[in-house]
Amino acid sequence: MSDYKIVEIKEDITSRNNLFAKEIKKELKERKIFYMNVMASPGSGKTTLITNLINRLKKDYRIGVIEADIDSDVDADSIAKNTGVKTIQMHTGGACHITCQMSYEALNALGMDDLDVIILENIGNLVCPAEFDTGATCKLVLLSVPEGDDKPLKYPLMFQVANAVAITKTDISHVFDFDVSKAEKNVHMRNPKIPFFVTSATENKGIDELEQYLRSEINKVLA
Amino acid sequence: MSDYKIVEIKEDITSRNNLFAKEIKKELKERKIFYMNVMASPGSGKTTLITNLINRLKKDYRIGVIEADIDSDVDADSIAKNTGVKTIQMHTGGACHITCQMSYEALNALGMDDLDVIILENIGNLVCPAEFDTGATCKLVLLSVPEGDDKPLKYPLMFQVANAVAITKTDISHVFDFDVSKAEKNVHMRNPKIPFFVTSATENKGIDELEQYLRSEINKVLA
Repeated sequence: MSDYKIVEIKEDITSRNNLFAKEIKKELKERKIFYMNVMASPGSGKTTLITNLINRLKKDYRIGVIEADIDSDVDADSIAKNTGVKTIQMHTGGACHITCQMSYEALNALGMDDLDVIILENIGNLVCPAEFDTGATCKLVLLSVPEGDDKPLKYPLMFQVANAVAITKTDISHVFDFDVSKAEKNVHMRNPKIPFFVTSATENKGIDELEQYLRSEINKVLA
Repeated sequence: MSDYKIVEIKEDITSRNNLFAKEIKKELKERKIFYMNVMASPGSGKTTLITNLINRLKKDYRIGVIEADIDSDVDADSIAKNTGVKTIQMHTGGACHITCQMSYEALNALGMDDLDVIILENIGNLVCPAEFDTGATCKLVLLSVPEGDDKPLKYPLMFQVANAVAITKTDISHVFDFDVSKAEKNVHMRNPKIPFFVTSATENKGIDELEQYLRSEINKVLA
């Protein structure tokens, strides 16, 4: 143990209005729509993984995508180009997360009438989006190899609220000091029974398992 | 251009109290302390770069470090062990950024009497910390190669408020599709005249240039 002291500095965080969350969930259930909120750090491979999954699932389900960013439309452009599914780009005007209200506006802007699965690619941020229920059926959290296996220790809430965790970019594991078993241990410390996937979207590794998990979860909603 | 629409969904973001910022800056100026706020995504190499810089600067300046995290003390442990300088771990109790008030509490907890340089390693987050002035003399923003060269497009404010930007982890550029000249163009689109460094802390590339820049900035404060 090295020589340093730990100072606890806390501040109240005002929870925003999550009143809509239950109502969104109820409406989606009635409409038989599976709504997945994908959360991760900036540059963790969200768009690449989502693209891969959509191209596996789109023959069986009608899919729509909401791309949330503070600015730019590079992700919506990429998703629309590489999957052909209905996609909208949401700009949050500086906001670091998506609230229920924003989520609901985006769902309506996308249109829910002809969709089975809606995927929200949240703002790249391991902190704030964890605090805001968007009304999603499933929260998929990604952790990329370059970020390091210690992230569940530093960003506890994100891994606590997740329904499933996928490690991404394992194809470049050879250049990083990333220990998958440590990452799994750290994730399960935060969320003991959570499904844990080890993937590379560019090399199609571990995506079969994640796809099977999602099909099973989607089918529960569509049944 | 692919087929998708852009929906502008805005929400007011309440600015927290930044009243202390000017007072902190005034006090630090009087005390002749250079206070650097290092901001970046989770896992972007903040701790490794800070460690390298401290080991170059510590023979000439008295340095202290404030490690800010939501939870864990892995970074404070690493900094204390690998540099030997005075280090404190600040826990933010879930907060996604450091406010002036938290910054000032931490500066006092660290102790300012015997220091020339104080480095704050902020929460890993490209969004919220950009909005909160901590009273720092200099804001150094890092962007790591695995995150991608498009990040200044998606996270504009962070690159607008920065005083200097360093690309990190260039030693593993060969496994990523990262274009340094595109990154530079994107950074300078947000902040035209900002100093831009291309570094690898593990291979000591580009760190001489960043060190020289910091020495020059530090010496302005100590003069």
